[in-house]
Amino acid sequence: MQVEVIGTAQQVSAEQVQGKTVVVIDVLRATTVMTTALQNGAAAVIPVTSPEEAFKFKEQIGEGVILGGERHAEPIAGFDYGNSPLSYTADVVAGKTLVMTTTNGTLALNNSMMARELVVGAFVNSEAVCQFLSDRQEVVLVCSGNNGLYTLEDALCAGHIIERLEAAGVSVQCTDFALAQKALYVSCCERLEQLASQGYHYRVLQQKGYAADLKYCFQSGICANIPIWNGQALVNLA
Amino acid sequence: MQVEVIGTAQQVSAEQVQGKTVVVIDVLRATTVMTTALQNGAAAVIPVTSPEEAFKFKEQIGEGVILGGERHAEPIAGFDYGNSPLSYTADVVAGKTLVMTTTNGTLALNNSMMARELVVGAFVNSEAVCQFLSDRQEVVLVCSGNNGLYTLEDALCAGHIIERLEAAGVSVQCTDFALAQKALYVSCCERLEQLASQGYHYRVLQQKGYAADLKYCFQSGICANIPIWNGQALVNLA
Repeated sequence: MQVEVIGTAQQVSAEQVQGKTVVVIDVLRATTVMTTALQNGAAAVIPVTSPEEAFKFKEQIGEGVILGGERHAEPIAGFDYGNSPLSYTADVVAGKTLVMTTTNGTLALNNSMMARELVVGAFVNSEAVCQFLSDRQEVVLVCSGNNGLYTLEDALCAGHIIERLEAAGVSVQCTDFALAQKALYVSCCERLEQLASQGYHYRVLQQKGYAADLKYCFQSGICANIPIWNGQALVNLA
Repeated sequence: MQVEVIGTAQQVSAEQVQGKTVVVIDVLRATTVMTTALQNGAAAVIPVTSPEEAFKFKEQIGEGVILGGERHAEPIAGFDYGNSPLSYTADVVAGKTLVMTTTNGTLALNNSMMARELVVGAFVNSEAVCQFLSDRQEVVLVCSGNNGLYTLEDALCAGHIIERLEAAGVSVQCTDFALAQKALYVSCCERLEQLASQGYHYRVLQQKGYAADLKYCFQSGICANIPIWNGQALVNLA
């Protein structure tokens, strides 16, 4: 398996993802939210790039739509929920369509639409993602980053996925960037949050009082589902 | 001190380097060669972007010019020397002007010309570079990379410089990307070449028979000089 890691949503080009299996990662918190909502029974998640687009969707679809997301880690006025995965419990999301806009994760997804298959990953569903990837040939792990900058938490999740694939016996050929993320993860996997907590985005969320979110987002394999793009929305892979 | 690391020559923008102290790093092998040549008595090193430009310089300046460099790790037809630091001994370079063109390092230098001060670093002169940087406020470490891709050896050198600055008592504020390179270096500093040797460029040079170069390029602090851009050429910082 050939594995490439891309460091930010902004760096993704159609050429890099075309014909490949792409995993979009935004640990804090978009892809953790998407995975959690679908795991808890949401019918679909529709990523959109702006709050205006989200409101338009709600107007068009009407009943059964929830608006979720953030701008710069803050909830959006008029939205039903913010970007905390802990908000998306079964009683909130079951059967509903979640229309989501976030700063980085949604952009990464939109820039990756030319992939052969496009799924969403985070620490919470890393085991399922590795299982899904295990027989693929060309894999691109897209770290969403933060406003065009590399973020430690997404890079560590990419490294974690590569390390888990190798631990499961997959022969992985890495680019230097992929190798570096794997080596970084391996170097700190016993004290993951200790390194991650030095990252900019982690510190912002901590200062804003999202400690429970942070704890949730760094748990591996607690969701068994894989959100996959079906051309119109993210749904659970059957 | 604020420290940013940029992963490739292609990613450098004028905005990122303007007003800052920039260190361009191309461990394999451009900045190792430049440092070595100046350490061994070269009068100046002029980085140019093409072999044609190098020939023009030689025609203009005439006597006392040496042409050096590579394209895709191979020597250039009509040039005096290739890109092996071991070629640039005192008897070859003393008093001479080295006009150099390399695939990545020269591009990184040219893209960093808007810096407040622009120096060249590698493992071979890392101690001198850290000494030079120790009282600066805003530092950008530019990894040249390889044809637009991140390379392990440059990232490890950037991480090494940050780690050495902190070890010397400098209070360093890192971006996530800078933090990652430092953590990566710290994780493998006892077995640096073991990780570096997994990198693409290292393996290419090994296959081409440059084992002695590789050994030389990973020695820290064997050169006491700092090549600095004076507006027209790289010369030793007085």
